[in-house]
Amino acid sequence: MRDLLLRACRGEPVPRPPVWLMRQAGRYLPEYRRIRERTTFLDLCKTPELAAEVTAQPVDILGVDAAIVFADILLVLEAMGAELRFESGDGPRFPSPVRSAADVERLRRPDVETDLGYVLSTIRLARRAVGSRVPVIGFAGSPWTVAAYLVEGAASSAFPHLLAWSYADPSGLRKLLDRIAEVTLDYLAAQVDAGAEALQIFDTWGGLLGAERWDALARPSLERILEGLPRGVPRIVYQRDGAHLLESLGRLPVEVVSVDWRVSLRDARRRLGRAKTLQGNLDPCALLAPIETVRRETERVLADGAGGPHVVNLGHGILPQTPVENARAFVAVAQGRGRD
Amino acid sequence: MRDLLLRACRGEPVPRPPVWLMRQAGRYLPEYRRIRERTTFLDLCKTPELAAEVTAQPVDILGVDAAIVFADILLVLEAMGAELRFESGDGPRFPSPVRSAADVERLRRPDVETDLGYVLSTIRLARRAVGSRVPVIGFAGSPWTVAAYLVEGAASSAFPHLLAWSYADPSGLRKLLDRIAEVTLDYLAAQVDAGAEALQIFDTWGGLLGAERWDALARPSLERILEGLPRGVPRIVYQRDGAHLLESLGRLPVEVVSVDWRVSLRDARRRLGRAKTLQGNLDPCALLAPIETVRRETERVLADGAGGPHVVNLGHGILPQTPVENARAFVAVAQGRGRD
Repeated sequence: MRDLLLRACRGEPVPRPPVWLMRQAGRYLPEYRRIRERTTFLDLCKTPELAAEVTAQPVDILGVDAAIVFADILLVLEAMGAELRFESGDGPRFPSPVRSAADVERLRRPDVETDLGYVLSTIRLARRAVGSRVPVIGFAGSPWTVAAYLVEGAASSAFPHLLAWSYADPSGLRKLLDRIAEVTLDYLAAQVDAGAEALQIFDTWGGLLGAERWDALARPSLERILEGLPRGVPRIVYQRDGAHLLESLGRLPVEVVSVDWRVSLRDARRRLGRAKTLQGNLDPCALLAPIETVRRETERVLADGAGGPHVVNLGHGILPQTPVENARAFVAVAQGRGRD
Repeated sequence: MRDLLLRACRGEPVPRPPVWLMRQAGRYLPEYRRIRERTTFLDLCKTPELAAEVTAQPVDILGVDAAIVFADILLVLEAMGAELRFESGDGPRFPSPVRSAADVERLRRPDVETDLGYVLSTIRLARRAVGSRVPVIGFAGSPWTVAAYLVEGAASSAFPHLLAWSYADPSGLRKLLDRIAEVTLDYLAAQVDAGAEALQIFDTWGGLLGAERWDALARPSLERILEGLPRGVPRIVYQRDGAHLLESLGRLPVEVVSVDWRVSLRDARRRLGRAKTLQGNLDPCALLAPIETVRRETERVLADGAGGPHVVNLGHGILPQTPVENARAFVAVAQGRGRD
């Protein structure tokens, strides 16, 4: 059923909840690794033929109910003029971090059709490859999360430069968030034009903030994006470490709240009601367990999510060391084909 | 007032809440760095004269209301026979991680008086140095948190080996947790004998687990320790990323729940009631802000904590780049000497 995901996002009746996996186009798949061997991560993102091929792989291999475009949340910053490097093993790095209002002035407003056109081409090609079977999801990072990497210069667990700036000069930081929001809105709207039928925003690092500070700092720019998007396209917001922010997310103009693996879906439903679709939330590490455990844990997620509209997913991205047969078992159980 | 901390921990009336800082003996202090230059981190832990000196430094320099013994939560594993390395910049590493029930058998039960005697000596010396002014806090990691490093082999943000093991063979992992608990109980009881008057257990990585799994996996060994401790010594449990586990912590036999900076103390009080003392929870990054902001944020923490017994602290360890005058301002405001 082609529109299973879209219906579930909108809270419409569905025969069963749809399922997809965050990072489903990725290193756990030998078919992905074979393509990735020939190129760098950034070049793969920028080669629409290959990016569309890896976007489609999990639809063919796992039978998921949606494809998510293969790209990265930080590409938008490169388009804004920030130098971005992906060094093997180290994750993303920005050699010239942005840490002041003056630094913000160095960023430019790109033309997303030109500067991020390769992502739009990937979406068009992916629609052609899988569009008759499943919808293609577009995505971006939240301004707070995207800024986190740019300010810190690299991934971090504590993001001290970002948080220090947020206390020392919140209005300077807000300027950065607003700039990113402006470009992200253009970018997501262009993704919809190119064929994305649902959009996920990754507020991965929103959970660094307490609720009051999240509302004051991270919410406004995120809300501006969400409110500016083309009507009728389901909006999904994901957060890691956000147990304390669930009510805040529930007040966003989104159709779907995607929760990490530490809040049970029952608890999330109790706190958010039935007006939001919940997405999630198997612990990605559970996919490293014996396959019977994978099946049992997936059934538990299904049962926990059954109290309202639900999109089955992981609570965070699938890990590179995940056995493909375990990912397949997760999808099979979610689709009611338990012993496939 | 020497017993301010102990009274506040027990929920007894106090003229003002006491204050100390997690990692207060550490790199942000030039006096610490001068000692540290001459030795390695591990050797510093193992040289009681020096370790006691750095334990006392924040009492002299900041005027905090408690000293916490300078040591590391992973020393207990070294005493159990695991090779532990601290490589500069990289944090702790275990070159031979423990990942199976067979690996657990290689660990031995140490004699804590012999194998961790240097920590006990540090406590005795620290008591002599500051004991007339403030109490000395002893500490250990929770079995789950200590095991996290040993299983993973190093710090991690996702701990995939640990979590994979927890799904694949929970009873094997429980064996490891029980072993660690046994030794930790001996160790903490010996710390009390040596002069520790309160004990903090760091369940730093408990928040990786959802509440049901935390209750099943992490709680039993932790509870065994807490229940076995000498009567009358206040027990503090700290957790990072534990907004979803607050009620679980509230059911532990502890006097104090120490929360990270993302749950407001008002919310924690509402959820835990007045029977527990709350400890925390200024965002350590707030100490990187201009000093007026430090004062304002500290006042907010005081106001948020005022609804019941409160020990003022950070929500996580103080950052090495913190200006000493900001740490001093935090302590001064907490002690009602706002413009010191």
